[in-house]
Amino acid sequence: MSAQELPLANNQRRGRPREFDRTNALECAMRQFWQHGYETLSMADLTTCLGINPPSLYAAFGSKQAFFLEAIDHYLATRGAYVYAVPSDQSSPRAMLAQLLQRAAEAFSDAAYPAGCFVLSSIATTYDSHEIEQAIVDRCQQRMSKINELVELGVQTGELPATTNADELAQFFICVLQGMSLQARLGASTNQLQAIVANALQLWPQTMRLR
Amino acid sequence: MSAQELPLANNQRRGRPREFDRTNALECAMRQFWQHGYETLSMADLTTCLGINPPSLYAAFGSKQAFFLEAIDHYLATRGAYVYAVPSDQSSPRAMLAQLLQRAAEAFSDAAYPAGCFVLSSIATTYDSHEIEQAIVDRCQQRMSKINELVELGVQTGELPATTNADELAQFFICVLQGMSLQARLGASTNQLQAIVANALQLWPQTMRLR
Repeated sequence: MSAQELPLANNQRRGRPREFDRTNALECAMRQFWQHGYETLSMADLTTCLGINPPSLYAAFGSKQAFFLEAIDHYLATRGAYVYAVPSDQSSPRAMLAQLLQRAAEAFSDAAYPAGCFVLSSIATTYDSHEIEQAIVDRCQQRMSKINELVELGVQTGELPATTNADELAQFFICVLQGMSLQARLGASTNQLQAIVANALQLWPQTMRLR
Repeated sequence: MSAQELPLANNQRRGRPREFDRTNALECAMRQFWQHGYETLSMADLTTCLGINPPSLYAAFGSKQAFFLEAIDHYLATRGAYVYAVPSDQSSPRAMLAQLLQRAAEAFSDAAYPAGCFVLSSIATTYDSHEIEQAIVDRCQQRMSKINELVELGVQTGELPATTNADELAQFFICVLQGMSLQARLGASTNQLQAIVANALQLWPQTMRLR
């Protein structure tokens, strides 16, 4: 589709009063916070980027904190959902983990977005309140707990030996996923991240034979 | 040794004029930047923490950028050296990699310091200049290249099969190390990080038999 054929965004639609588009604003704020970090980005930067005045911004989103958390949740509902939503189909737990990690390899290195995972990148920075830090950690742990569930399911279904330390193996895969986000920010390509995934998955062999 | 017996720091020594102690200042700045990040910490925060006035701080260290990079290099020469300096003894390449990762597990979760690796934590934040960002990335890659050397040495000495993709295996271990830094910032204990190391090292078995 050429640029000319792109549908107009809500706030550009002819015959409609030009009004503040929350979703567009959240998408823009998500990309800005993701790229620059919570502390670095000022509300002044955001109003410039969104092309609206500070009173409109505060009226629509409240504080910088509230806007940031809404941007995080917008990420988790859109781009992040693509990575972290594990299909509840008939795949094996290992296949579902492989899909999650491979999607992360692809998404974290996609040039159409800032590198890495927005939530994981947000952990390394500090915050002006304990509340926001806790909200980030909670959201991170909620997504990472999917990996715990998949490894536990692997043990339950016999794909992994009953003697597997499921907590430790899950923590290992979570560590790899988190390292991948940092690697992507350092410029790793999709192929390089996929090779990391392939190596990590050797700890859960596809044709594991149980003794 | 009790607190009373602790030797006085240079700037507290009786009979000596009280003067600005660069090393103490760097140690303090290192901990502050490490904990709070480059962007979050202001020069005003630093002068308060160091108990000196801004002109003295600028006279001693130049810009905030220069001070930050000196704090990074102070870390790499002290705490970071403990983690990243691989012994050039007669150990096997695998034993040296294991030591590097185990020291990281211990150091990243040591409550006496901010969590994780100062250099790795500094990657996720953005900077007011490309110059400083590049300096961080260079220092990071310099340390990580030790892991490449160890894996290559493993292949050369026959500890790893000649068919090993050394680049990919090294990148995997680097990813795990970087994930460990983030895990530590999320509160992982030494034991939890050691379990991650033990899992990762399974990709380089101690008693690997070559076909």
